Amino acid sequence: MKVAIVGYGTIGKRVADAVSRQDDMTLVGIYKVTPDYEAVAAAQKGYRVFAPREKADAFKKIGVEVEGDLNDLASRADVIVDATPDGVGAQNKELYVKLGKNAIFQGGEEADVAEVSFNALGNYEKALGKRYIRVVSCNTTSITRVLSSLLLNGYKIRRARVFITRRGADPKEHKKGPINDVVPNPATVPSHHGPDVQTVLEGIDIVTLAVAVPVTIMHMHMAYIELDEAPSKDAVMEALATTPRILLFETKKGYSSLAQIIEWARDIGRPRGDVWEVSVLQDSVTVRGNELYLMYGVHQEAVVVPENIDAIRAMYRLADKWSSIEKTDKSLGIVTHGKKYNR
Amino acid sequence: MKVAIVGYGTIGKRVADAVSRQDDMTLVGIYKVTPDYEAVAAAQKGYRVFAPREKADAFKKIGVEVEGDLNDLASRADVIVDATPDGVGAQNKELYVKLGKNAIFQGGEEADVAEVSFNALGNYEKALGKRYIRVVSCNTTSITRVLSSLLLNGYKIRRARVFITRRGADPKEHKKGPINDVVPNPATVPSHHGPDVQTVLEGIDIVTLAVAVPVTIMHMHMAYIELDEAPSKDAVMEALATTPRILLFETKKGYSSLAQIIEWARDIGRPRGDVWEVSVLQDSVTVRGNELYLMYGVHQEAVVVPENIDAIRAMYRLADKWSSIEKTDKSLGIVTHGKKYNR
Repeated sequence: MKVAIVGYGTIGKRVADAVSRQDDMTLVGIYKVTPDYEAVAAAQKGYRVFAPREKADAFKKIGVEVEGDLNDLASRADVIVDATPDGVGAQNKELYVKLGKNAIFQGGEEADVAEVSFNALGNYEKALGKRYIRVVSCNTTSITRVLSSLLLNGYKIRRARVFITRRGADPKEHKKGPINDVVPNPATVPSHHGPDVQTVLEGIDIVTLAVAVPVTIMHMHMAYIELDEAPSKDAVMEALATTPRILLFETKKGYSSLAQIIEWARDIGRPRGDVWEVSVLQDSVTVRGNELYLMYGVHQEAVVVPENIDAIRAMYRLADKWSSIEKTDKSLGIVTHGKKYNR
Repeated sequence: MKVAIVGYGTIGKRVADAVSRQDDMTLVGIYKVTPDYEAVAAAQKGYRVFAPREKADAFKKIGVEVEGDLNDLASRADVIVDATPDGVGAQNKELYVKLGKNAIFQGGEEADVAEVSFNALGNYEKALGKRYIRVVSCNTTSITRVLSSLLLNGYKIRRARVFITRRGADPKEHKKGPINDVVPNPATVPSHHGPDVQTVLEGIDIVTLAVAVPVTIMHMHMAYIELDEAPSKDAVMEALATTPRILLFETKKGYSSLAQIIEWARDIGRPRGDVWEVSVLQDSVTVRGNELYLMYGVHQEAVVVPENIDAIRAMYRLADKWSSIEKTDKSLGIVTHGKKYNR
């Protein structure tokens, strides 16, 4: 499959790298509007760079040869991964439809931009053969993984209440806040994440609240999940530990906050220090009757990257759910504790 | 009543000022271990300063005359408000007992330091005539106020789950963190706040989780409260609005985060910009069946100050619950929406 990346920011550049690592996909190029250091890095990696015609000179001035515009890039691809800022994807869709191209959109778009909102663990099968797929946002992806881990292991979820302490900005975003504030995001209940999870896991009773804080590295979720029956803590741990894209971090090994999780990813040589996995603080996993509590970190820049790859496979029926998940994870270096995927 | 303040830090200096505003109490002096700018400010206010004998010269060098040591100060008082760092109060208690003095401790001490853990709305009557009272911490005080507001208005609380995004340090604490991190505080469930609320509101089903963030101005709570019956949102609003020491802040007036609440307090001339009230973001108050959700800010430096005053009144039976609350609030300038206290 020939894949084009439109929008080469936080998500786009990571998906481009991930596509390059797949043996059943080819990256045909990336489209970028701003001539800057990220464009230079893309060109240095050997990616074909596309940009608006009127910007071609500006790109050239920073040493980047532009191979064409959005239309040119989209025409060369089978599928476009659109990782443009919120709302732009919906505008771009018009072109993709006109050219008869399939497209993957990101969680910043409204759900109706696509035929299905997607999470690999949650509803891979629903995306089979679809032409327009929306990969839900990092927070929604992470909640969906945790809930899917429980559902796939036979637990019945009575209700999930998730309280999100969001990072205020990504590391590169020097103009965003907050500084020294906790900002309801939004002040109203629920935040969009709950309803968004329901676009993947239909009918689940979930309410989410969110605040933004002066942090750039990761989101933190505090989750309260009521099950139909009292679970055993060991069984829940086993479920989480054997679910792809969920990792458990033990306090006794020195993981006492999000910072050490990111440091681990940097130490083991992950590209950009990315943590693709939902990062559960193991000590937080607590069972109290039929209530389950846990805290986990969400690396907002990285979590949805494997989902974008799986979405492409589902779109073209290149693999079944577990094969795609395993293939993607192997290609990126995602590890799962203990067991292989064998559900 | 002659009141001594031992420990003149964040809480101690505020309680000293509050005591000075009461017509049924006299501040006999403050005890401080470190000769610094806060000691100078205390002396400039006319407060009698006490310090360890061996530090008297150091205090003199910064222009502060020391009137005696801890023993001297405690001997002159009827009651000591001990606002020393966690654990020091329990050590000091030995002296207070030896001198036959009553004492108020803060929430940093273990509950067994006192005969009762105290919140004015929650259990004023239980403190009547007690010689050793512990005023619970800012977070516990605030949760207790919110739950008490519901209980006093006839609601039955099935369970309360409160998720706390804590400020990492006070404004003056330049050595504390975190910077750019969300730190489980603790990673285990529950945080101490839940059990601490139960020392005031016995038998209540409460679980709390907490994380610390790079913020100095206020804590933020996201609360999920399940009631026995579905409440009307208007009635809950009315309950909160007419409860002392709870304020509602409307988004449409520009209160969209904690920062604007602190700015309001500074603008209206509050000493040090203090917000003694639990600060509810009105738009967050949400009813969903028998579930109530709300977000509120907790000014960690100020919230417990009125409670310290009421604790002294309860100790000496100087006033009944509602009279003391009203008297304290009037003296400080605490406003309550709409109604007077008339329960």
